[in-house]
Amino acid sequence: AANKKLLVLPGDGIGPEVMRETRRVIDWMARRRSLSFEIEEGLVGGAAIEAEGAPISDATVARAKAADAVLFGSVGGPKWDGLPFEQRPELGILRLRKDLGLFANLRPAVVLDPLAEASSLKPDVVRGVDIMVVRETVGGVYFGEPRGVEKAPDGRRRGFDTQVYFEDEIARVARVAFDLARKRRNKVTSVEKANVMQSGRLWRAVVGEVHKAEYPDVQLENMYADNCAMQLCSRPAQFDVILGDNLFGDVLSDLAAALTGSLGMLPSATLGAVDPVTGKRHALYEPIHGSAPDIAGKGVANPCAQMLSFAMLLRWSFGFEEEARLVEQAVEKVLAGGLRTADIMQAGRARVGTSVMGEAVVREL
Amino acid sequence: AANKKLLVLPGDGIGPEVMRETRRVIDWMARRRSLSFEIEEGLVGGAAIEAEGAPISDATVARAKAADAVLFGSVGGPKWDGLPFEQRPELGILRLRKDLGLFANLRPAVVLDPLAEASSLKPDVVRGVDIMVVRETVGGVYFGEPRGVEKAPDGRRRGFDTQVYFEDEIARVARVAFDLARKRRNKVTSVEKANVMQSGRLWRAVVGEVHKAEYPDVQLENMYADNCAMQLCSRPAQFDVILGDNLFGDVLSDLAAALTGSLGMLPSATLGAVDPVTGKRHALYEPIHGSAPDIAGKGVANPCAQMLSFAMLLRWSFGFEEEARLVEQAVEKVLAGGLRTADIMQAGRARVGTSVMGEAVVREL
Ligand SMILES: CC(C)[C@H](C(=O)O)[C@@H](O)C(=O)O
Ligand SMILES: CC(C)[C@H](C(=O)O)[C@@H](O)C(=O)O
Repeated sequence: AANKKLLVLPGDGIGPEVMRETRRVIDWMARRRSLSFEIEEGLVGGAAIEAEGAPISDATVARAKAADAVLFGSVGGPKWDGLPFEQRPELGILRLRKDLGLFANLRPAVVLDPLAEASSLKPDVVRGVDIMVVRETVGGVYFGEPRGVEKAPDGRRRGFDTQVYFEDEIARVARVAFDLARKRRNKVTSVEKANVMQSGRLWRAVVGEVHKAEYPDVQLENMYADNCAMQLCSRPAQFDVILGDNLFGDVLSDLAAALTGSLGMLPSATLGAVDPVTGKRHALYEPIHGSAPDIAGKGVANPCAQMLSFAMLLRWSFGFEEEARLVEQAVEKVLAGGLRTADIMQAGRARVGTSVMGEAVVREL
Repeated sequence: AANKKLLVLPGDGIGPEVMRETRRVIDWMARRRSLSFEIEEGLVGGAAIEAEGAPISDATVARAKAADAVLFGSVGGPKWDGLPFEQRPELGILRLRKDLGLFANLRPAVVLDPLAEASSLKPDVVRGVDIMVVRETVGGVYFGEPRGVEKAPDGRRRGFDTQVYFEDEIARVARVAFDLARKRRNKVTSVEKANVMQSGRLWRAVVGEVHKAEYPDVQLENMYADNCAMQLCSRPAQFDVILGDNLFGDVLSDLAAALTGSLGMLPSATLGAVDPVTGKRHALYEPIHGSAPDIAGKGVANPCAQMLSFAMLLRWSFGFEEEARLVEQAVEKVLAGGLRTADIMQAGRARVGTSVMGEAVVREL
């Protein structure tokens, strides 16, 4: 296979630790499956603030654009909590999403059979849960203008944001959700607050139009965000694909992830539009979990989510379905064999650290 | 005691059914505890649309303002889903909140011991959970201007809302949360997305200032909304009071309610400011559950949340602590005795309908 360009951005907290183990999986792919990647590393988040004076440098953004895919760790930590809004570590990932046009964040929340017991929900409620949350990631209240904190004429401080969507922004992410549903269980639950928000009203209308015109074979259900949070908690097995805007998608995908009980196992992909000329699309892969400053540097973080993010990269950016499955199966076998990092520890299993877990996955490959 | 003026608004769906049982509790209070209420009934939501042409009439709003307290059922149903945004049933409750200045919505999420098994979460995760969500209800994205769906100059439809808070709107609801925490377990978790929203940044700053100046004895924790959703699902017992804006408060309070597994049991209160001259405050009491059109008219709805909303009314609007406890204890005893409506049914208990449940509570009184 031709050289594939990867930009690796470990970021902060446990990011570098879990990325180190993932690099071993990448190396294995080069050695044993002749997938030769041209790999660059870069800085993002707090690490980039320290070394380069900004949460992501223009040079790093340029390298991300030039790469075939970005493998991302996590950003942020208490060290940078005091920084002004315009300098916070989160801008690293926000700017990548925006500048690369990564509008569709795919967040699978899957309960693996050996881990059903790890959930805070009853095993019979979560067993077999397999949800894909599709979250819009370049629009909405995250980027809408005007926004700011200012003094009103009467002297009071006023903080404001604009929640805004154009119809084509809604339609393109809806298509991603419907396409995915067709390959899964054929159902999309679209989430908004159309009963109180105007942007939600447009969201519901456009999703309905795309459904009717292009995907009448897929089952579409509209659900208010508050109700969706309830239903995720009480009957998660009813969901197949959940479609939400930037803000509701953020909260509900984290909830869906939490109910699996194995956050340290969950990867995600964020995809841009397919270029009609080259057929390529920008894409970024990152674990759902954050930088977890409390356990950073202790060698106890679970590297699986980062490794599985690389598996998603193989599948979505390069169509290496077989190799993606190899990684996923290796992780499943290691779990079935009884190894557990602290976050998914269960009675009767063997507790291991980041590097033993990483080694075990590579050995299984 | 002097005459207390109540406005009763049963609304749509199961609202009228559960209100009927609650009226029996109110009657009992008049007969046996000499709490004489002057009661008016009014229409709201779909019922008001049908009879009066609007989700709430000006006359009803005026009566709500003149009343000492409003006892509210629930609004909405598929019948009115097709109506234009400006005519939807939800405007009934939204207008009451706004016109009466009901800015603080108190939503307890309590797991009663006999119902711990009803939760989708493991009993040891939810047992003893006792959370109070304080939600801001007259500001934020629910009311911010400008908002609308319009055609942009380039012809695309654009839906937009404004998320906006003034510092005093944040401070007054924060005080409600801190005051409650002092009477509980002394901890407030304030929720926002200060990492991506400007209004969230102001929210965190103002809550911090109020805390420092007026409530340094209360423990304050700031948490991002996505993380809060996760934590509610995985470790709900860590929370005491959760403070959120209109939108996050809506989603997270519903999630907190769902995890108790007994939505049909949960009341809420929405309070206005105390008038410095009269010492009075406007207040509205309503169950957390909605109008549940799917079971409306079948006589199977759980009347407890509505009855417990009346108990909150006794406590918060009139200081009748003893009578409030009487109602709460009667409900608990009926549950301990084994009666269950369909929503909280458990093996080995007796399944009953709305009116048998209502009767049992009155008998227990
Ligand atoms: C880091 C932060 C900006 C981010 C978000 O809110 O989008 C995070 O919560 C996520 O979901 O990736
Ligand atoms: C009926 C609707 C407007 C309402 C809201 O979103 O506030 C409901 O969900 C609630 O929580 O009371």
